[in-house]
Amino acid sequence: MTSKNSIPQSAAAAIITPTVISPTVISPLPASRKIYVTGSRRDLRVPMREITQTDTPTAMGGEKNPPLFVYDCSGPYTDPNASIDIRAGLAPLRAAWIAERNDTEQLVGVSSVYGRQRAADVSPDVLRFHLQRLPRRAKAGANVTQMHYARQGMVTPEMEFIAIRENVNRRAYIEALKASPNGEKVAAFMGRRHAGQSFGADIPDEITPEFVRAEIARGRAIVPANINHPEAEPMIIGRHFLTKINANIGNSALGSSIQEEVDKLLWSIRWGGDTVMDLSTGKHIHETREWILRNAPVPIGTVPIYQALEKVGGKAEELTWDIFRDTLIEQAEQGVDYFTIHAGVLLRYVPMTANRMTGIVSRGGSIMAKWCLAHHRESFLYTHFEDICEIMKQYDVAFSLGDGLRPGSIWDANDEAQLAELKTLGELTDIAWKHDVQVMIEGPGHVPMQRIKENVELEQEWCKDAPFYTLGPLVTDIAPGYDHITSAIGAAQIGWYGTAMLCYVTPKEHLGLPNKEDVKTGIITYKIAAHAADLAKGHPAAQLRDNALSKARFEFRWDDQFNLGLDPDTARAYHDATLPQEGAKIAHFCSMCGPHFCSMKITQDVRDFAALQGIKEQEALTKGMESKAVEFVKEGAEVYRKV
Amino acid sequence: MTSKNSIPQSAAAAIITPTVISPTVISPLPASRKIYVTGSRRDLRVPMREITQTDTPTAMGGEKNPPLFVYDCSGPYTDPNASIDIRAGLAPLRAAWIAERNDTEQLVGVSSVYGRQRAADVSPDVLRFHLQRLPRRAKAGANVTQMHYARQGMVTPEMEFIAIRENVNRRAYIEALKASPNGEKVAAFMGRRHAGQSFGADIPDEITPEFVRAEIARGRAIVPANINHPEAEPMIIGRHFLTKINANIGNSALGSSIQEEVDKLLWSIRWGGDTVMDLSTGKHIHETREWILRNAPVPIGTVPIYQALEKVGGKAEELTWDIFRDTLIEQAEQGVDYFTIHAGVLLRYVPMTANRMTGIVSRGGSIMAKWCLAHHRESFLYTHFEDICEIMKQYDVAFSLGDGLRPGSIWDANDEAQLAELKTLGELTDIAWKHDVQVMIEGPGHVPMQRIKENVELEQEWCKDAPFYTLGPLVTDIAPGYDHITSAIGAAQIGWYGTAMLCYVTPKEHLGLPNKEDVKTGIITYKIAAHAADLAKGHPAAQLRDNALSKARFEFRWDDQFNLGLDPDTARAYHDATLPQEGAKIAHFCSMCGPHFCSMKITQDVRDFAALQGIKEQEALTKGMESKAVEFVKEGAEVYRKV
Repeated sequence: MTSKNSIPQSAAAAIITPTVISPTVISPLPASRKIYVTGSRRDLRVPMREITQTDTPTAMGGEKNPPLFVYDCSGPYTDPNASIDIRAGLAPLRAAWIAERNDTEQLVGVSSVYGRQRAADVSPDVLRFHLQRLPRRAKAGANVTQMHYARQGMVTPEMEFIAIRENVNRRAYIEALKASPNGEKVAAFMGRRHAGQSFGADIPDEITPEFVRAEIARGRAIVPANINHPEAEPMIIGRHFLTKINANIGNSALGSSIQEEVDKLLWSIRWGGDTVMDLSTGKHIHETREWILRNAPVPIGTVPIYQALEKVGGKAEELTWDIFRDTLIEQAEQGVDYFTIHAGVLLRYVPMTANRMTGIVSRGGSIMAKWCLAHHRESFLYTHFEDICEIMKQYDVAFSLGDGLRPGSIWDANDEAQLAELKTLGELTDIAWKHDVQVMIEGPGHVPMQRIKENVELEQEWCKDAPFYTLGPLVTDIAPGYDHITSAIGAAQIGWYGTAMLCYVTPKEHLGLPNKEDVKTGIITYKIAAHAADLAKGHPAAQLRDNALSKARFEFRWDDQFNLGLDPDTARAYHDATLPQEGAKIAHFCSMCGPHFCSMKITQDVRDFAALQGIKEQEALTKGMESKAVEFVKEGAEVYRKV
Repeated sequence: MTSKNSIPQSAAAAIITPTVISPTVISPLPASRKIYVTGSRRDLRVPMREITQTDTPTAMGGEKNPPLFVYDCSGPYTDPNASIDIRAGLAPLRAAWIAERNDTEQLVGVSSVYGRQRAADVSPDVLRFHLQRLPRRAKAGANVTQMHYARQGMVTPEMEFIAIRENVNRRAYIEALKASPNGEKVAAFMGRRHAGQSFGADIPDEITPEFVRAEIARGRAIVPANINHPEAEPMIIGRHFLTKINANIGNSALGSSIQEEVDKLLWSIRWGGDTVMDLSTGKHIHETREWILRNAPVPIGTVPIYQALEKVGGKAEELTWDIFRDTLIEQAEQGVDYFTIHAGVLLRYVPMTANRMTGIVSRGGSIMAKWCLAHHRESFLYTHFEDICEIMKQYDVAFSLGDGLRPGSIWDANDEAQLAELKTLGELTDIAWKHDVQVMIEGPGHVPMQRIKENVELEQEWCKDAPFYTLGPLVTDIAPGYDHITSAIGAAQIGWYGTAMLCYVTPKEHLGLPNKEDVKTGIITYKIAAHAADLAKGHPAAQLRDNALSKARFEFRWDDQFNLGLDPDTARAYHDATLPQEGAKIAHFCSMCGPHFCSMKITQDVRDFAALQGIKEQEALTKGMESKAVEFVKEGAEVYRKV
């Protein structure tokens, strides 16, 4: 994914390596506790966030509201029991699983020329993450991708981890509801959900490890899990699973320190980034990436051509297969989980962009277009695609096939250049799958609403259901400064139609470098889009959270309402801006209407009134409504009773 | 519309009447100038905002980029030639048109009991807007609604005004493009647009006064234009016109001064609020409304039951038809352009809300539900509906038939209670239309994406294409603090499907009182949703602005990019946060990638490179691409030429 966001630095060009982490980044969220659901083996512990709720006020029924569980991307950081040392990195939770498979070997040192040069160079020493571990690679002839295992019929611990993770412990929540008085009714009430409109997706009620395996085997889902990134908690990207989001970080020529990048990584996962792309283009890319990977509990993606370009001084035409190949190996041995590779930018497609409103806006796409024109032939990404597959399968790096010709404006949406490239990505998908290499497909960009669906349909057809991974799309170009919103509108829709992962856009898109607040805004906005998509598809886990929050809202459980939301801090701050007193958080009204004019309070009054008066058939039946009488009586008895 | 937003006050409970207006509220937007397009008579001057653009850099072609015109809600305030005195109010631009029709008479004083009491009461004197004008009312037996005129075949000045306004002067823009060198090609290029998907809407290329008349006559559009609000610039709400947005203001029991309400009104229209609802529930509702109306160039809506309830000390069951009727007359004679009236809340529907997740969340709905239960009969809104019509047609107040039983949570969407009420609103529409009274229909609320379309389809069917006016809808409940976004996702979609006006939601929804910044955020967010809907429907005016902005972006015309956007100030501030130097605004790169790594720059390099080298057929044709040769040659000649 190639949104050109990176993070500004506070000091001019100082490179600061990480030392401490701010408590605001790693403290547990309010009323939240990290729990682990253990799988079939003791070292298979799947993290979730448990959100505790208060009881319903006595006047409204006094029920216990059991804790709700939510998907948690934040890794060990938000676990007060975990010991965190970013200079040592995270524990390699997958190391044993990888080793057990006995198809990899530990290398005596890094294989890439650049990696060796960098290691021998004393100058970046101060920046270096001191990794004790040597890289691993597949044994000669072995294929270590999750897709390969899946196609062999093997259910890996990663797959089981994912199955547990995707179920979000909701059976425990439902069981807790059932254990309350009148439990079956309560559980049915809180578990209600709308039928989805899934556009062909068929999401099972319970995700099993075998289902995960089958989806990976047929290429409809991927698990980005490089054997050299054993710190990552397995996750899955596919349209039969929860919709995921990606956050971009990375420094640029204009700055940002390593400390800041690590901060942004932790900040991103705190708020729900499922994967993070390091789009660094400045100096010390290699060292920055090492710090990020060693501290990342989520998969990390990169665009290797960016670093390759740095290696040739920014001159696209001087790029070679050898330099690119060495970069792939360098990054694969560091542990990058997926590579954006713009192998679909063919020479013959470049002229198709000539009459565009905004030409080629993908950085990777324009680099490759320039290369193709300079050499008058197809790029090494395309001609060496099978060689790239050979590298990918030795480390289990997944392809994110880049949309180098994606539209950069509303007019350019769904044009000949974009669709020609998409079709080529479908052909490349076949080649990658021949090697059992995992693939997802990148998509636009800028698309008006009525043309979004076509993108998904063509991608599914041409790329045979490989997971789609889109940037937005922005549904209009007229709101610079608000492109998190213009794009969330598109992202929610494209997610609904079947996109598996949504790449976030921040308010600074097109304008400047996102700061920490922008990163958070982008992530929360995209969590909204992803969740809205899950709801619309009818994902069986999605609506539980809406229902719990709605009930808390209706019962004026203010703290619960904040805590069940995506951003408890902001919700609380907004509430307190008007009614800061602690008592207001248990008040049965809010600041919008004041104590005497609250519709929810009136609804309660209506219920109380009715309970006092008792609604009788004859009282209710006034002239003209006899036809409704039977229904009214039937339902009237229950009108003001709590479930 | 009954979103419970109102505006906080800075000082405790002081009521401050307006004196001065901050220049930040009324200064013209950057590079913008108020222009007027004159119609068939000299006093028919339709305001637009003209945005000036700079030339394309010489290296990129050096074209002149003519000014773009955009719809302008800000009234005379942003016209430096207009004399503004909020103590005197705006000039009554429609006064002559109303008088000429010779079907109204000036009253000797206000007709409502409350209005007379209030006028006789010395205490609110300090707060009072000193209106010199006496109210008007239809002559006995006359009907002064725009619908009535339309059905008589009469094209009023209001209708002509609207026709000009809806065309947004785009013919002048296209003509200016055509006047440039290579003009036909440039105009075709900048005028390109995607085919819309309009779900049955049929928007003509040019809006004529007769088209406006016909749409009003058949009830598919409304013009809220009370004869006592002659200050308002006519506008139209209907799905064959530009999608409109409404902003809510109004004080509550917890405060907000009149000064602040007037400020919020002006702030709302500056950023694009097409109508404003005054949802005041606190003290001095009457006086606040007078200040708002006299200074409002946009239609003002209210929910009269709120004030009626104040008159009975907040006790819903003590409401009577007489009090409500007097309130309608009081407000109609002040000039309110549309009334939200929850006449569809029937006694037999109330039990349908019993098993809801969040009961009745509409304030108006819960008031009426309480009344119905207390009296065990249908409300006076329903039983006196024809009497209400009689009042409406004497002043031309439009109905906004309220959705008192709208869902307040995802689960409650599209339920029996909501749909039963909607069907009743359809029956009431027939009654109103029998009186030639204009009607729009309010809609939800909270709806998951897959169930939004059903709302529009049922509304169109049951309410016979009366304009739909919805609050959001929010597509998920899990993001308190971000409900402008959760609802913009739904608003864009419901607008696309055919909703005519979208009621904004601010970030403080469900949490607290929006401040000025929240109001702006809500409005810009909803302008995005409305514009995205127009693009998706294929509105012929919509994409011009996207194209102009995209071209400016591609050409690194930073100032133009800011100025063509919905919020130039924020876009500029975000850009300057990273690159504050003035030179950066003419730089051919931006902060995201720095000077050496910009994809747009690379695209330009690609063009320059190709221009230097000259792409020849035989060079381009490498092995394997012969099949594409013909196309390549055909297009290659134009690849790097500007249009």
